This record gives sequence, C-alpha cells and structure tokens, in this order.
Amino acid sequence: MLVKSKSEFQLLKDGHVTSPKGFTAGGMHCGLRKSKLDFGWLHSEVPACAAGVYTMNSFQAAPLKVTQESLAVDQKLQTIVVNSGIANACTGAQGIEDAQETQKLSAAKMNVKQNHVAVASTGLIGVTLPMEKIEAGIEAMNEPENQAPERFEQAILTTDTITKTIAVQLEIDGKTITIGGAAKGSGMIHPNMATMLAYMTTDAEAEPGSLQNALRAVTDKTFNMITVDGDCSTNDTVLVMANGLQNNEPLNENHPQWDKFVHALTYVSEELAKQIAKDGEGATKLIEVKVKGASSEQAGRKVGKAVISSNLVKSAVYGSDPNWGRIICAVGYSEEPVNPDKVNVFLGEIPVVKNGLPVDFDEQEGKTYLDQPSVKLTVDLNDGHAEATAWGCDLTYDYVKINASYRT
Amino acid sequence: MLVKSKSEFQLLKDGHVTSPKGFTAGGMHCGLRKSKLDFGWLHSEVPACAAGVYTMNSFQAAPLKVTQESLAVDQKLQTIVVNSGIANACTGAQGIEDAQETQKLSAAKMNVKQNHVAVASTGLIGVTLPMEKIEAGIEAMNEPENQAPERFEQAILTTDTITKTIAVQLEIDGKTITIGGAAKGSGMIHPNMATMLAYMTTDAEAEPGSLQNALRAVTDKTFNMITVDGDCSTNDTVLVMANGLQNNEPLNENHPQWDKFVHALTYVSEELAKQIAKDGEGATKLIEVKVKGASSEQAGRKVGKAVISSNLVKSAVYGSDPNWGRIICAVGYSEEPVNPDKVNVFLGEIPVVKNGLPVDFDEQEGKTYLDQPSVKLTVDLNDGHAEATAWGCDLTYDYVKINASYRT
Repeated sequence: MLVKSKSEFQLLKDGHVTSPKGFTAGGMHCGLRKSKLDFGWLHSEVPACAAGVYTMNSFQAAPLKVTQESLAVDQKLQTIVVNSGIANACTGAQGIEDAQETQKLSAAKMNVKQNHVAVASTGLIGVTLPMEKIEAGIEAMNEPENQAPERFEQAILTTDTITKTIAVQLEIDGKTITIGGAAKGSGMIHPNMATMLAYMTTDAEAEPGSLQNALRAVTDKTFNMITVDGDCSTNDTVLVMANGLQNNEPLNENHPQWDKFVHALTYVSEELAKQIAKDGEGATKLIEVKVKGASSEQAGRKVGKAVISSNLVKSAVYGSDPNWGRIICAVGYSEEPVNPDKVNVFLGEIPVVKNGLPVDFDEQEGKTYLDQPSVKLTVDLNDGHAEATAWGCDLTYDYVKINASYRT
Repeated sequence: MLVKSKSEFQLLKDGHVTSPKGFTAGGMHCGLRKSKLDFGWLHSEVPACAAGVYTMNSFQAAPLKVTQESLAVDQKLQTIVVNSGIANACTGAQGIEDAQETQKLSAAKMNVKQNHVAVASTGLIGVTLPMEKIEAGIEAMNEPENQAPERFEQAILTTDTITKTIAVQLEIDGKTITIGGAAKGSGMIHPNMATMLAYMTTDAEAEPGSLQNALRAVTDKTFNMITVDGDCSTNDTVLVMANGLQNNEPLNENHPQWDKFVHALTYVSEELAKQIAKDGEGATKLIEVKVKGASSEQAGRKVGKAVISSNLVKSAVYGSDPNWGRIICAVGYSEEPVNPDKVNVFLGEIPVVKNGLPVDFDEQEGKTYLDQPSVKLTVDLNDGHAEATAWGCDLTYDYVKINASYRT
C-alpha cells in the first residue's frame, strides 16, 4: 500500500460514491445490453469543482472529447452520465453529435448547465449509440426506483464480475469530509489506463488547479499502475468532483491539511485500482509487484510495469509455479538500466534471488504462497531509495475464453 | 514478405543449415531433458567469418558473454555448441566457468581454436549446467549415429513442436552459393528477440564488418519483428557463419551482388522468424501485421509491434472474431503519433476501417477469413511511404496451460 498509515482517515463500512454529502446516483436498463443495467448517472446537488485525466490512446472516444471541452469551460461538473455496452469510439462526427446530444438532454433533465455534464461510454468500439434508447435512459434518470449507488456501480460495468466501490472520511479544518469512489474495468486495462472508468466524489471544497494536479499525481501512482492485459483503451477516464458542501477552507497546495487530503484521495484511488486488477478478465489472483531500491520512482514504475505485464509471470502465478526466472527476465527487459548482480527477488517474504543468483528455497513453500488469492512479488534493485508498486492479475484459460468471443 | 522477388535466389527442397558446402551438424541426448535430444553442434570444416546479435535483456546469460568475447577476437567461428533444457542464465561466476569449460572441451574435441567455438544454452533460468552430462555430450560429438542436421535442429528445441529450417541458393560471381538456416523459439519470443536461437550458414566468402552490418539490419526486420508473448529472454542469439568455400570475391557493401546476397539472407531470416511465430506456444495461427503508409520504417515497426503484441488482438484471432476495434486500439496506444482520421484497416483483403471509421462488411466473411491457419492484418496509416511487417500468433488456452506448468 502506498499510504503508510490509515490513522489520518477512516474507511467507511459500505462506502459508496454517494457517501459524501450532496451526491446521488442511479442506474437502469435502457436496452444497450441484453438485460444488465447499462445506463447510469452520478449527480451533485450543487456544481462541483472537478478534474479529469483521460486515456493516452490516439483514438480517443467521442465522449472524452466532449467532456474535456466542457470541463475546460469553468472546471466544474454537476452530473456524470455513463452508458455501458457501446464505447462510442471510432464513430466520427456522428459520435460527437450523439455525445453532445446526450449531454444536452441530460442537462435539461437534471436542470444543470450543459457544460456541467460529463458523458462517458464503455463497450464495443465502432458502433454508434442508438439514441432513442439513450433518450429513454435520460428520461428515466432520477426516478426513485432507479436511484441507488449500487445501481450506478452496476450500470457502468462491462465484463466486470463485481462492482468497485469505497469511501473514506477525514477531518479537514475540523470538519468531517468524505471521499467516495466507484470504478469499472476488467479487460483492456493497462498502464496509462484502459477501458477503465473511475469516479471520485468529495464534499470538501477544493481549488480546481490543485485538484487537477493532485488527480494527475495520484493517477500516475494508482490507476496507471494496474494492468490486466497490456491493452489501453479508447475510453479511459478518471473524474473527481469536489462539491464543497462541508464549507472547509478551499483545499490547495498551501492548505495545512493538503497532504492529508491527497493521502486519502490516493488511498481511494489505490483501492479502486486494486479492485479493478483483482477483477481482471478471467483472473483468479491479485498480483502486487513492489519495486524497491530504484534509482527513481519512474525507474521503479517501469520495472514494476514490465513484471506485472509479463504473460509468463502471469501464467506462472496462475499455475502457482515459483518460477522466479520469469520475474528476473522481465526486470531485464524493462529497458531500465539494471545491475543484474545487485537484484534481489522475493515471493511474499520468501527470498528467491539474491544479488542476481538463485537462493535455495523450499519449492513447496513457494507454491503454497502463490496459491493464495493475493500475492506479492518484491524486486529490490539495490540501486537507490525510490519505490513503486504495480498491480495486476494472473493470466488464465478464462481470459482467453472471454476475449476469443467477446462479441459472439 | 519483405523480399519482393525470389527470382534472385532459389528455395532448396529439404534445405538445412548444413546445405552450404563444408558444414556438418548433429545432436544427441546427454541427459539434461527427460528423453528429447538436448545437445547439438554445428561445424564448418574451415574457420568461417562470423557475426552475431544478442538479446537486449540486462540479464544476459553466461554463454552469450563467452561467445561475444570469443567472436571479438578475430570475427571467426568454426563450431557452435548448443544445449537445451537449461539456460545457464543467472548462474554467476559458475555459469561463466561452465560456459568456458564447454567451449574449451568442445574446441579440443573438434580440434579447433577455443575462440572459434560459440556456446549457447536455452531452457530454465537459474540452474547451473551439470557438467558431467555436458562432457558426455561433447565426447559423443561427431559420432556417426549422431550426425544429421535434423538431429541438431531437434536438439536445440524447448517447448517448440516443430523444427525450423530452410536453405536457398543464388549465384554470386558466377558461383552457386548456398545459405542455410536453423532456429528454435516458441515462448518468450518478443521484439528484440527472445528465447530464440537462430543459426545461419553460407559457403560464400564475406568480410566480417559487412556481414555484421547485414546481420544487424536483417535481424531488425525479421527476428526482431516476431512476438509470441511479449517476453524477451536472457539467451537470444543469432549467429551467421560464412566459410568462403565457394571462393567468390569477398562480399562487402561494394560487391556488385551485395544486395542480392542480403536479400537472400533476409529471406532466410524471415522464413525462420515466421516458422518461429507460427510455432508459438499453444498457437493455432500465424498472424502477419503489415503496416503501410508509415512516416518512417521505425514508426511502422512500432505500430506493427503494438498490434502483434496485443493479447486482445491475439485472442480475437484465436476466436476468429473480426473485432477490428482491438486493432485500432493497439494502433492508438503504440506511442507513435497517429492521425486517427486517416487510418485504414484490412483483414486480408476485406476493408473494415476507412479513415478511422467502420466500413460495413460481412461479419461471416471476416470470420471465415480469420478461420485460416495464416492471417494477415493490414494497417494503412496514410502518413508516408514506409512499410513494416510483424509476425506473431494467436493467444490460446494452450499458451496458458503450457506456461502455468512449464516446470512441473
């Protein structure tokens, strides 16, 4: 875990993206998917200071373009509208038009400014939105039977098997503020995000520039450090909304409790990121790769990403095979300069490589360790004091099965 | 295919690494593997001008270090000794000592200079060579019952299911010269090579500097453009030996038939590379990704590698799912600047994306095309005139099966 101590904040039991004051959410079935919920919304009773980070993919989906432009107007959002099933990516001018229409109709329905509505889509690429279904969804927004954070969290899923949610509370300026989060992501997850959507909310007040800086830094350490399959999608988006209903002094880098706030935001992001990695397509295990002794945080991240992305490492973990050679191999091709004679590797607490050479260890003990649902691989480069952590999952028959027939 | 015309050279029926004059090869079981051949040698009756390229992995195995040092002495090789089963990687000083001892004993046995012996290993990382078994192998080198190129080609395999071999003939200075090749590689194959060994032989005479330049250029276009699983190993080596027994004018960049020679060498490398990709662990299909209209060859290679490395593309091809969105997605995250509005994509000859937008096509036709054992995906970036080709294979249940239990 990146956050050393949780004493600064408290994990809420049954926390949701609507745990902070003034947020509501819901979801419904509008007909894009067979029977699962496919249309969701998240709403703040007042416009919230907002920040976003988006996929690095050159083929950025239409809703991302519309959302970025709108957010640029006054760095505020009040409503987020999400559909699953269709990504509205590679849909050209029609896609932009549909995203704008979704935004406009949602704004009218929720009685908010059009540029205060963010739109998001996830699903198949290259298919345009059936707007009559989207309109039906918008029409039913806010109807009492569709209201519930759980319904929002379900509506944004695609091949995910579980919803991802969390909330924490902390004191800022003597007031109890809450940070909540919800996310989706299962396949096409890779450093620099992927078909991954994450929404974080807080009732704290924050300055937009500071919030944007914090989100960028936090995302680099959390959402950008997870991989399921090395693919990075057209639709990834992380948004944070701070509606200020707790009336604290606006948070910025000079606020005495800024670090505390950022720690809590990091924790929320990290937990959502881990929930996504754990629910990777076909995954049976969460893998955490911790890189220690790196010359820089960036170097550590590069090595961590190489190991967590290795199909051979992922397959070995699936088979509980303590084949550390594959870890070493991935460290070696990470393109970071590494001194092989200084590298140590651990499976959990079991040392398996010391100074680049194998350590005698009990194979059965290694196997037993890897049989757990959550495993930690540590690589100590002994080349400095920086650290980084990456998360991912094992590669299984089911990953292949799911992806050999996603559409059929 | 990179080589436009084969009229410059002829493909030999049943060609082998020993097809060129003066080369012999063999293989035997020395006990590193359960019952498969695990020790092979390739020999030229006279010292041959030689060149090599090696893995970029920081953890370079011991035999690569020993071979590189030896080859640096006078750019000549006469004998190549290879064991499979154990990689002699991450074995420290003991590994170097064992590789040197293997080299020394082989030189004595074959009556050649020690620095004219190249040593190579492939298999498990972190295990030292049982030298008494290696010595038994060396002792049996050249025994008539072990002689045969097929035995050499088998002895160098690990998880491969077929041997990889080819030979071509061409006229140089009015003399018929032959280029032969043998290779292994199945898993841990990735751009910048991987547990891949390739040996090429010719009875042409060539200058060492020119041969090295040619090998580097040819490798970048062929062996470095194949991927099985994105992992790049500690032991990859490509060596070429030119023993000059045809007494042509020494080949160099100024020789009037230099290009012809390089084309033939490229063809041999490309065919070996494709044989490796096709035999990828668990693979059922060879995938060729052709990138056209790139701003530079390097840009084209980067895009091609991104597509061929995508687990989602590989899974889709396995399932014969014409899901071009995954191809577009990989193009988009290749880190090459791409103009989405200019990109065209074809499955075989079927256009599926035009100017970044989907083309209506018959899904069943796409499925039928992808059902073939060899499929071609073309990406036209419409951004210049450079081209590049990458090869790989589909991702299957069997890949996971093989790699979840490699050692057990």
